[in-house]
Parts: sequence; structure tokens; C-alpha cells
Amino acid sequence: MSRAWLLPEHIADVLPAQAFQIEALRRRLIDQASRRGFELVIPPLLEHLESLLSGTGHELDLQTFKLVDQLSGRMLGLRADTTPQAARIDAHLLNRSGVTRLCYCGPVLHAQKAGPGTSREPLQFGAEVFGHAGPESDLEIQDLALEVLAHAGAKHPSIDLADARILKGLLAGVDLDPLALRDIVESLSRKDAASLGSQVAGLPEPARDGLLALLDLFGGTQVLQRARGLLPRHALITAALDQLEWLAQRLEADHPELVVSFDLADMGGYAYYSGVRFAIYAQGCAEALARGGRYDEVGAIFGRNRPAVGFSLDLKALSGLTDAGSVGAAIRAPWGDEPAFKNAVRRLRDAGETVVFDFPGTQAQECGHSFDRELVKIAGQWVLRPV
Amino acid sequence: MSRAWLLPEHIADVLPAQAFQIEALRRRLIDQASRRGFELVIPPLLEHLESLLSGTGHELDLQTFKLVDQLSGRMLGLRADTTPQAARIDAHLLNRSGVTRLCYCGPVLHAQKAGPGTSREPLQFGAEVFGHAGPESDLEIQDLALEVLAHAGAKHPSIDLADARILKGLLAGVDLDPLALRDIVESLSRKDAASLGSQVAGLPEPARDGLLALLDLFGGTQVLQRARGLLPRHALITAALDQLEWLAQRLEADHPELVVSFDLADMGGYAYYSGVRFAIYAQGCAEALARGGRYDEVGAIFGRNRPAVGFSLDLKALSGLTDAGSVGAAIRAPWGDEPAFKNAVRRLRDAGETVVFDFPGTQAQECGHSFDRELVKIAGQWVLRPV
Repeated sequence: MSRAWLLPEHIADVLPAQAFQIEALRRRLIDQASRRGFELVIPPLLEHLESLLSGTGHELDLQTFKLVDQLSGRMLGLRADTTPQAARIDAHLLNRSGVTRLCYCGPVLHAQKAGPGTSREPLQFGAEVFGHAGPESDLEIQDLALEVLAHAGAKHPSIDLADARILKGLLAGVDLDPLALRDIVESLSRKDAASLGSQVAGLPEPARDGLLALLDLFGGTQVLQRARGLLPRHALITAALDQLEWLAQRLEADHPELVVSFDLADMGGYAYYSGVRFAIYAQGCAEALARGGRYDEVGAIFGRNRPAVGFSLDLKALSGLTDAGSVGAAIRAPWGDEPAFKNAVRRLRDAGETVVFDFPGTQAQECGHSFDRELVKIAGQWVLRPV
Repeated sequence: MSRAWLLPEHIADVLPAQAFQIEALRRRLIDQASRRGFELVIPPLLEHLESLLSGTGHELDLQTFKLVDQLSGRMLGLRADTTPQAARIDAHLLNRSGVTRLCYCGPVLHAQKAGPGTSREPLQFGAEVFGHAGPESDLEIQDLALEVLAHAGAKHPSIDLADARILKGLLAGVDLDPLALRDIVESLSRKDAASLGSQVAGLPEPARDGLLALLDLFGGTQVLQRARGLLPRHALITAALDQLEWLAQRLEADHPELVVSFDLADMGGYAYYSGVRFAIYAQGCAEALARGGRYDEVGAIFGRNRPAVGFSLDLKALSGLTDAGSVGAAIRAPWGDEPAFKNAVRRLRDAGETVVFDFPGTQAQECGHSFDRELVKIAGQWVLRPV
């Protein structure tokens, strides 16, 4: 026997019970987004590499599987994230003047594993608002993310807010090469005061003090007040703090059980995000269940620099929040081809029942369904009886 | 402006109106299969190359995009067909003794274009029965394929039947190298009598005459009677003809408007199929909308050689049968955060309505929805009024 059944690392089949659950979640999420006016799009899995990586930074490049197109000889990538594709569709294909709301649901592929226990083939659901720069569209996206997570069974949710403009404000006018910036962002994310101290030692005083102050600016809403005292009064920083406060007030009012917290030192994805960024967690999940934020620059390469805010999540991870149920009750039937039998079966299926044939010479005893009734012929009539 | 929005050849985005239609079709197809006991599985897009190509022949190899896994250094393939994956799941993961019915719905990728006007990224829906060798499971698969196509809007359907056992029967005991066999199959498919004549000249008489006779064995049910007279009486050939007749009788009885035809010379996929093969056509479609058949050998490499029969189709092609509708009526609303407004919006959405906010400073006039009502405040109450 060969080992042909072995799958690559961090790649897995989804078997019936979980697939059934993911399908139900998928429909509910698309419907919830649709009821807010988000329109479904299905971008391709394969694109020219430069389109997939437009304005997205180094991380997405490393995560992207690359291959050569036999038809053109050009380099293609398998999408590792659907957001740049949604931005391309908004900018180039729809090209509307008003607000566009798009959602999508499909696989993405990661060349490397993104975190412990994560799949290299997440089933990504996401939603994006294009063409509106105000905080109302940030709130719409966060509210939708919280709603779909609640319906998917996320308990005791918390949202962690940050803002890419704080870093931009602190470093405004400072000449810093990209590698040095990357190191600073990494030290900030790890709250590594020693490394950060030496990395910022040569910077102008307001930038240096501000970056060091970020290390302690995490926690509840009091963080914003402290930040106003500790950070320089740059327009970008003030705008960020005002908007974080505006969002936190509304999130707390609309979602009474939600814990709102801030981590102003978290600049992950700084090359990508241009405003408020968020991650939503739930009890029992070490990793964030949904991530999103504002990324107004992503559409630029497609010829249209529209305001944009969105979020995405992995339906496979989300389906782990609740136990996989059974595929549901079903009716066992013999196989037959007399018209009365076929009519009886058709009527039951049209009414939404699952009717499974026992083919001649077999028994459907192991087919994953739990049979609670069977179709039998009694006194010339096809009737259901419990089993 | 860059050309980053250009997609690879035969790769396209699916925009909202068509995506909405595909999503509706997708749900209906999965539900129709589910009501017959087919259980949904979600196999991965990426697998080790040898698993994807197990027992599937040369054609699938050429169609498969290949890339190297950074984690293992091994060669991976992007699935060009989901059937071998379903066979792997049946053989290795579920490993049931009874009949297993599986269905799937997800993208596949083709390194080359499969035909004129076809996408290199079909959205493949398929269903397979494992563990039953009789014609009843062939009929179940054909009946399901016809049912889903009818619901998807296929008009004037016709089914074309063939059987891989006829070629096996004719060549039983004949020593033929694989390339010569491939040439013969190609000449048969093209009905190229001149090429076939020279290719079979050296074969024993019954094989030679039988292969040449196949060229004329296409058309309605009378083909089977003629075949019984013209082809040698080999057990495989008799079994094939008996089974084709059995199926044709039942298909004609169950689907009065279906045209049943045969093409016994069509041996496409002979390396893969082991019994009856079919293709379903509809008015206005040059290409088959669904293809399937019996392929009892595919699971062998996974350690379990189970009888198997199935079909697949491309949802993107299928969605072209009907006009893309509109995304549906919707309600326009201002943006607001007073509790009475938010309650009114929530109630409408909970009732299944689409409510789209006009964010401050914008108008949702171009959002792809047709607004037939708006939410307005009249005498202190939030009410709907027609627009």
C-alpha cells in the first residue's frame, strides 16, 4: 500500500460533519453581510504576482505560493489574502463613484504556516467597504465582524484596537530606512524595551520618547487619556485617538458584553493598514478569530486610491468554536423503480427530507446519517415508519 | 497607472450579479445532493502530486499546476479534478464497509485551457457513490445530474452514453503498447476511419473488425441492437450493452423529455473510467454541462479498490444558462446611532431585509441594489416608505 493518502503539512481534508457545519456557517455569514448591502464577489485563486502583492508588504510576499503560467510564461501567485483582489475589483471593474460594499468567501493558500495550529488553507470570509473615509464605515465593519462571530458561537468576545496613524505621526519628518522601521515595529509588538531603546536612540526626541511611551499604552479605555498626555500633538495622532474613542463608545453601547481594549504599540501590518486596526478574540481561542482595519492605499496600484476598511476570518477556525453536529436525521429506503415508490421518494425530498437508498446487495448502515424512519410498503402503500 | 488589474488568460473575476446567482445555485445543488444522502466534503486545493494524479492518466497530469512545498521540498499539485480526492477520502479517511455517498463544491485549476470558452478555474460541483457496483448507483448519479441541471435551467437535455468496457473487451488478450492504444482511442473519438484502419491493420481479426465497427455505432437506442450483431460476444461487451440498455430504459421513463443517445466509439478518459460513461448536453451549449461515469480503479493507490461512480460540472458554466438577476430589492437608510433607529434596522435585517446605510457625506445610489423603500423618521417613528 502506498502512502499516497498523506497530505502536505498543515493541509487537511474537511470531513462530512465539519463540512456540513462550515457550509451552514458560510451561508449564514454571506446572508448576514448581504442584509447590510455587501455584495458577493468571487475573485480567482490565481493572479499575476504583482497584482496579488500590490501595496501589501513583505509578509504577504513570503506567504504567497508562486508558479509559472505555461500559457504566458509569467509568474503567478496563489492568493494568500483576498483583500487586494476586492480592492482591484472595486477600483477597476466596478469603478463606482459611491460607496461599494463587497464580501467574499473562498480558500486562500499560505506557503508557510501562519501560526501554531493554523491551516495553510484557510477558508477566508471577508467584507470590505470602499469609498467612505469616516469612522462610520469602520464601525460598520467591526459591528458586522462581531455579529457574525456571535452567531458562530464566539463567547465572551473582546476587541483589541490599534491605529497605524500613531506610528506615522510619531515618525513624521523622520528619515528612517525600511529595515530600521521593521525592527522598531517588531520590538514594539514584542514589548521589547531593551531592543527598542537602542533602535530609537538616534531619533529626534519627540519620536524617541513617543515610541518608548507606546510600550505602556495598552489596556482599557483609560489608555486613550494617558496617550493624549504622553504622545506629541501631531494631527495624525490626535485623529487616531479621537476616532478610537468614538469607536470604543459605540462598540460598548451596542455590545454590552464586549471587552474593548487597546494596544497602541501593536503596529502589525503597518505597511498595509492606514488607520484603525482591530482584532477580535473569544474565550478559549488563543488566536484572533477576525482581523481587520482601514487600508486606504491598497487600491492605488489599480489606478484608484479609494478609502477602504474591511475584515476577514477563517471559517475553518471558526467552525472549531462549536461541536460538529450530525448531518441530520434521514429516511432509509429500499431501491426501487415502480412509479408509486419513486413518487413517494420525490415528495419526501421536495419537502426537504433526506431519503437514502439501500442499493441492491448493500445496506446503508454506515453512511454518516442517523436513520430515524424508513420507507416501507404496507398494504400496497409506501409509508414511513420509525426505526 | 499600472496594468496590475490584468488577469491571466482564461481567468476571470465573478462580479456581484453572477456571484449571487452562483451562490444560489451552489446552495441548491448541495441541498439536492444532500437530500439523497450525499455528504459534503471539502478536500484541500493542494496535495502531493502523486496523490492527485493517482490512476488518472496523462491528461490530468498536463492539466495540473505544479509547485514546490517550501516546508517539505516535495512537489505539490493544485487539484485539476476533485474526484481522486473524494476517492482518497472514501478509501482512507472514512473507510466504511457500506455505501458512501460524497459531494463537493469548490474551485479546481487547470494549467491549460480545457476547451474553447472554458475557464481555467472552474467551480467544480460533483457527487460520487462508493462501494456499489450495480447499475442502480450509475442511475442514481445520472438522475442527480439531470435533476440539478434541470433546476439550474438546462432546457432540452440530452445524455450521451458510452462504456469503457467495450474497448477493454475488444482488446482483451491483445498485446498493445500504451501509445498505440492512445492513437486508436483518438482516431475513434474523431471518427477518423482512415487513420484507424492503418492503426488496427495488424490486430487479430475480431479486435480489428470490432474497432472499425465502433465508428458507426452512434445514435439512438437502435445502436445497441446493431452493436450486439457487430461486436464479438465478449463478457465485458455483453455486460456493457446490457447495462446501457437497462439505464436507457429507466432514463427515458423517468425523464420524458430527455434525448438518450449512444456513441460507442467515444473512449475519452479510457484510462480513468471502467464502465458506463456519460455526458449531458442542453440546448444552446456546445460543451457538455456535466460529465461522469464509473471509475472503479481510482481508489486503488489509496489501498482500497472500491466500486465508484460519479459526475461533476462547472458551476460557472452552469450559471451562464440563465440571465444573472439583480441582487434583489433593498431598503435605503441614513446612518444613525440612536437606539430607536438601530432597533428598527435590526428588526428589518432579522426579518431577512437588506438595509443599506448612506454613510455621512455619501449616497448609496450606485451600490448594485435597487432600492424600493427607505427608512425615514416621521413624527418621531422610524418607518418605511416607497421610493
